Amino acid sequence: MGPQTEEMHPADLADVAEALPEELVRAFLAALPRERAAEVLEYLDEELRTQVLEELPAGEAAEIVAEMDPDERADALEELDEETADEILQELEPEEKAETERLLQYDPYTAGGLMTTEFVSVLETLTVEESLRGVRAMARGGRREAMYTIYTVDDTGRLRGVLSLRELLAAPEGTRISELAWSEVVSVSPDMLQEEVSQITSNYDLVALPVVDVDKRLLGVVTVDDVIDVIQEEGTEDAQKFGGMEALEEPYMQISLWQNVRKRGGWLAVLAVSEMLTASVMARYEDELGRVILLAQFIPLIMSSGGNSGSQATSLIIRAMALGEVRLSDWWQVVQRELPAGLILGLMLGTLAAARISAWALLGLYDYGPHHFRLALTVGITLVSIVTIGSLTGSMLPFLLRRLGFDPASASAPFVATLVDVSAISIYFSVAYMMLRGTLL
Amino acid sequence: MGPQTEEMHPADLADVAEALPEELVRAFLAALPRERAAEVLEYLDEELRTQVLEELPAGEAAEIVAEMDPDERADALEELDEETADEILQELEPEEKAETERLLQYDPYTAGGLMTTEFVSVLETLTVEESLRGVRAMARGGRREAMYTIYTVDDTGRLRGVLSLRELLAAPEGTRISELAWSEVVSVSPDMLQEEVSQITSNYDLVALPVVDVDKRLLGVVTVDDVIDVIQEEGTEDAQKFGGMEALEEPYMQISLWQNVRKRGGWLAVLAVSEMLTASVMARYEDELGRVILLAQFIPLIMSSGGNSGSQATSLIIRAMALGEVRLSDWWQVVQRELPAGLILGLMLGTLAAARISAWALLGLYDYGPHHFRLALTVGITLVSIVTIGSLTGSMLPFLLRRLGFDPASASAPFVATLVDVSAISIYFSVAYMMLRGTLL
Repeated sequence: MGPQTEEMHPADLADVAEALPEELVRAFLAALPRERAAEVLEYLDEELRTQVLEELPAGEAAEIVAEMDPDERADALEELDEETADEILQELEPEEKAETERLLQYDPYTAGGLMTTEFVSVLETLTVEESLRGVRAMARGGRREAMYTIYTVDDTGRLRGVLSLRELLAAPEGTRISELAWSEVVSVSPDMLQEEVSQITSNYDLVALPVVDVDKRLLGVVTVDDVIDVIQEEGTEDAQKFGGMEALEEPYMQISLWQNVRKRGGWLAVLAVSEMLTASVMARYEDELGRVILLAQFIPLIMSSGGNSGSQATSLIIRAMALGEVRLSDWWQVVQRELPAGLILGLMLGTLAAARISAWALLGLYDYGPHHFRLALTVGITLVSIVTIGSLTGSMLPFLLRRLGFDPASASAPFVATLVDVSAISIYFSVAYMMLRGTLL
Repeated sequence: MGPQTEEMHPADLADVAEALPEELVRAFLAALPRERAAEVLEYLDEELRTQVLEELPAGEAAEIVAEMDPDERADALEELDEETADEILQELEPEEKAETERLLQYDPYTAGGLMTTEFVSVLETLTVEESLRGVRAMARGGRREAMYTIYTVDDTGRLRGVLSLRELLAAPEGTRISELAWSEVVSVSPDMLQEEVSQITSNYDLVALPVVDVDKRLLGVVTVDDVIDVIQEEGTEDAQKFGGMEALEEPYMQISLWQNVRKRGGWLAVLAVSEMLTASVMARYEDELGRVILLAQFIPLIMSSGGNSGSQATSLIIRAMALGEVRLSDWWQVVQRELPAGLILGLMLGTLAAARISAWALLGLYDYGPHHFRLALTVGITLVSIVTIGSLTGSMLPFLLRRLGFDPASASAPFVATLVDVSAISIYFSVAYMMLRGTLL
């Protein structure tokens, strides 16, 4: 006999549900004990969860979501159309209803939207035994989350200290809890953005982060499992944006062809229209190009080198910003790092390309004509400039976007490459004009 | 008066230490109680930690690292030069020494390298009270990590079940622990790679993941704070690789100019050399280009559109692989998604570009000559092909790299763009040859 459903992890049960034909998911959930069904819902793919909850009679749906952790319950209702969400809310017990409505007020992408209201707080005047008794009672009451960090509060509900359940268990009996608790508590306000919440949690290795109002009154607690989800989500969003598209909101294998095209098409079109500027720039140099067709051969090399160095610099800065290593005010320090780095990298590529042209000419592999040395110099000088410009543009674009209130991760590799391409063509032909005037031009 | 150092979070104390002139860090740590110093070391920047430990007399260093969690201790020693690490190991108590040596045997990037040996396991035949007494004794013994998940074992040490400290606290007295524990335990082997460990932990919302040997004997536990670090590290590595460079191993603001250049220069040079192939390809079409200089104007547009669509597809697949959404065997399904998506996106861009050329010609904004319609068609057809090829190349490259045993994240945006560029030029001139033969060519 295989494992009973009550022995299986709810994440695995959710996988089972996702593999079922849609019309059977409801029956599957109905067959589970209510608490179990609630757990499975927490792990279920969002779209499927929404669908199931919308199909269930409001009373049945309410009975299941009542068993969910308050933060998960609010998340689940957030996704429903307003009418259904309201119907379900009406069916909840008054206390659960009020709690859920309070949570629903917060932006889902903030500390308030992430937090659960099921935390453990005790009056700081209690003793270890009194507190432990309270904790055991809460554990028996079925509270599941944020059990292992205990917050101490004064009689107005203000957050005063924190201790771990371990410390409580280890403390000699009779100790007053205020003597045990740490008074330096890292806490955040409910409107803090989820990126910052995840940075703080990972910097301090917290398993729970308390959320307080302006008077330091404890509102809720963000638990580490939600933080992991945030980190994963933000990472995915950043990666997709950096790849030059809008972030998908669902796993790649689940999106439709239409979503796939829509999320990519917009940026592709914008980039293509911008890139058409290069055609206009080149049109201005048509005469020069007509006289020295050779110049065209190195356009791809020059464009891609500028784009590549820009893409490197951008990925470095976006990631450093996401981890909180680099702040807006650090821009000048970054310039001081990228300028020399860009110059050195540019000199390297410039030398490489000039050497390639001269070598081909001297070895007779290709006939660059009598002025091959000037051509090599033209390409080399252009590369030094464009790699430097690429590094600077790539590193500064995330700062500029953030300063203007956009997500710095929108500074995608293709975006930077396109920005750099237009200058690449102009610089190339200007350098060529200077270097080759009187000889080839 | 400000907070005492003993009230400050060790992460903040580590920030203080990092801000000090290097020669004062040792004195600062020496001034702290030993256990406190150990905590600060756990949060200290790796390079600084290594330096401090190498400068301290082995005896003093051993006294501090003895207070660290076993997994953190092994990580700290791993970074030291072998001789110093050995000297410190010799100074440890025999039991700590043996434990640390055991942990040092594992590859740091596997479950074995991440796990701590300070977990709580109890014989499944005990009762709730007996177990709770054991847990409180362990808590008093200063064990800090993995306290909140309790593993049950049989008398040979085989993992049998799991329960949370909450469940233990909530259980009616007298219950046998085997009746409480869940028998379906998610566990991994010590050689599982850290990426997979983090996927499992986040899929199951675990706070701790047990590591077992082939006989199911419990070796250690990976805790969620280490998993968060892994997720952050892997995300940074992937982002930097995708940006077209080697992953930095340190925060951007801490690397030297030389490291910055070295991590980027290698890939830039390889990409530039590959891109030089485009020069050779174009050399072959010099005649055609000489006759229709106009063609050069659209080279940047064509190259960048191919690169951009490739970069989008790559970022999608790399991320989906990192999250475990897409596996190696899914490649054909991905082809079936990317082929139509690429065609539609290509048709869109092709139409856009052809419209731009025709519009400019008809409005008299630029003189593309009498055959502007054929030119528009040439650019349009090329874009349809190259965007499709870009989407396919970009999505398949991560599969190919993984199949060959490389990190799929090495399929960077610049790498894909360079691959696509060479075909872009060939396709463009082939289409032009077909379309314009007898008219312009």
